[in-house]
Order: sequence, then C-alpha cells, then structure tokens
Amino acid sequence: MPGATEQKIIDAAVRLFAAQGYDATSVQEIVAAAEVTKGALYHYFRSKDDLLFEIYRLLITAQSADMDRIIGLGLPVAETVREILVSLVVSTAERVDETAVFVRELHRLGEERMTDFRAERRRYHETFLAVIEKGQADGDFSSAVPADTVVRIAFGVVNQLPMWYRPDGEKTPARLAGEIADFVLAGLR
Amino acid sequence: MPGATEQKIIDAAVRLFAAQGYDATSVQEIVAAAEVTKGALYHYFRSKDDLLFEIYRLLITAQSADMDRIIGLGLPVAETVREILVSLVVSTAERVDETAVFVRELHRLGEERMTDFRAERRRYHETFLAVIEKGQADGDFSSAVPADTVVRIAFGVVNQLPMWYRPDGEKTPARLAGEIADFVLAGLR
Repeated sequence: MPGATEQKIIDAAVRLFAAQGYDATSVQEIVAAAEVTKGALYHYFRSKDDLLFEIYRLLITAQSADMDRIIGLGLPVAETVREILVSLVVSTAERVDETAVFVRELHRLGEERMTDFRAERRRYHETFLAVIEKGQADGDFSSAVPADTVVRIAFGVVNQLPMWYRPDGEKTPARLAGEIADFVLAGLR
Repeated sequence: MPGATEQKIIDAAVRLFAAQGYDATSVQEIVAAAEVTKGALYHYFRSKDDLLFEIYRLLITAQSADMDRIIGLGLPVAETVREILVSLVVSTAERVDETAVFVRELHRLGEERMTDFRAERRRYHETFLAVIEKGQADGDFSSAVPADTVVRIAFGVVNQLPMWYRPDGEKTPARLAGEIADFVLAGLR
C-alpha cells in the first residue's frame, strides 16, 4: 500500500491524466495539484511513465491479493467465483479512469515493464482458471464450455468496462458486479 | 463490398500495419505491396487515415448486414442469438489483426469519423439488445440478468479478442464462436 504522500501524487496524476490526457499533463502540474514538492514526486517515481505504471500496478496487485484472500476463505466454489467476480468488477468499475488512462498509454511501457505487467495478469488469469477447472472437475459446475473460454468471457466484460461504464451512471459498481456474477454462474450451472 | 483493386490495397495495408505498425508504414510501401499505382490508392482513399478507417468500416458494416440478415430469417430466438454470436465471433476472430490495428489507432480518427463509428456500433448494440429483450419478454429467456448486461458480457469477450486470440492457435474461430454462444445461451436459460 502506498503512503499518504505517494497516494496524494497518484490521485492527482489520475485526475489530471483522465481529464486532459497523459501527454498534456506535466510533472509540474501533478506536484501542484498534489500539493507536494517535485523532490517528493521524484523520491517515489523516477518519471511520469513510472508514475503511470505504478498507478496500474497498485490496482492489479490489490486485485490479486483480494483473489488470494477470497480463495483462502475456503467457501463453496460457486461462492468463491461470485466473490472473486464481484471484487474484480467493483474494483475495476470504481477505477475506470485509471484503467482507461493505462490502456491508452500501454504502448509506452518499456519491454521490462510489459513483461512484469503480463506476468501479473497471467498469474491472476491462471488462478481464476484453476478455480473454474476445479469446480468443473468436482461436478459443481457444468463442463459444457471449457474453463478457458469461461474465463475469457468473464474477464472480457471486466476489461471492456473502461470503454463504457460510468460510476456516476444508473448502475452502481456493486449492482453491475452482482449481475455479471449472476450471469457467469448461470452459465456454469 | 470493395472492388478487386480496393481489396488488394486494403489487404496489403492490413498486413503492413499489423507487421510493422501504422506509423512505420508509408503509402509507398502499401502501393508496392498491393502492386497498384499511387494514383489508384488515392482514387479510393484520401489518406492513410482514410484507409485505416475504411478497413474497419468494412468490417463493422459487414457484421451489421449479417445481423440484419440473420434476424430476417425469423428463427426461434435462441437460434437467432446463436447465429448472431457465431457470425460476430468468427468474423472478428478471423480479422483480429485489422481490429488490433484499428483499436490502437482509434485516437487518430477525427471527430466526424468517431461520430460515424460510434453510431454504427450503437446501432449494432441496440439491435442485438432488442433481440435479447424480446426473448426475455416472451419468456424464452430468463430475465434474471438485465438484457443490457447480457449484451455487455457477450460483446466484451468479442471486443477483447484482438488482445489474446490468434487464428493459428489451437482453437479455430468456429470452435471458439460455438463455445461463446453456448455459454451465453446457458446463462439465458
């Protein structure tokens, strides 16, 4: 978890990147909006690119930790899937601005960071896949559709959220999350 | 439908954009690869941006026409949904390169084209939404999950295909399409 100063910088950067774009936002504007010194920013982040990456890394790290926590509860598999999907959809829906900025600027990440990013995403993907596969193997879920396609469907809607979801629209993140979990579990029955 | 020369230009452009990027590809390279004259290219396309847009417009126009044709068959609603999804997934999966290029370069479209693009996408979305809603209203589908979320889930996986699907991988477009249709229809039961 980031400290208070780091969090202030991240919050300011997310607001500015989302409002005026990554290119149009200077480090000077970020430190002014965050009410910190340039020295403080460079203490935590090597560059504007580094800040962008850190914004997204924090989100996916929190999502991974949350999935591990849910699996650790040892609930029945349908409950585990519901909790994982609700947690993922809510955390993504609440942060569509960050995710949209990150996706748009993804091509800026250097090779090393792209590798880190893909590894983290792959771990998340494979952990969820293993949950679905176990549910199918134990007969709790239908095996009519292979687990890899079920996971692509569940993550597809989550990854597309930044393209259309607005947290101040008519559906709250929790309501949308419940609907998505209901549909995926209905498909697995 | 484009004529033979136009199609040769489009095919060459797609190959080059996918292999080396949009920026790195010159109009000269496209005409050389397509074995046409620069004059022929500029007869069909005002600019490289115009060509990029046309590549994608042809795909979504064909997908829309196909959905209209399927609905016109007057099949039972579950069959209609299956045919629409299979057609959409197959046509997208066969053209992940085009779609990936387009998504990456989306920000280059001017305001007028973005408006056209969004209108075409919206029409497609709303037509499919109406099919699901009618199936729910007639009692052929479960109404447990609202139709708008069902559509977001079905289109989410399709729109994410360019991020992970490879047509030369282990799943053919037709097989993947069948799995996705099976899962969506299972969720609607």
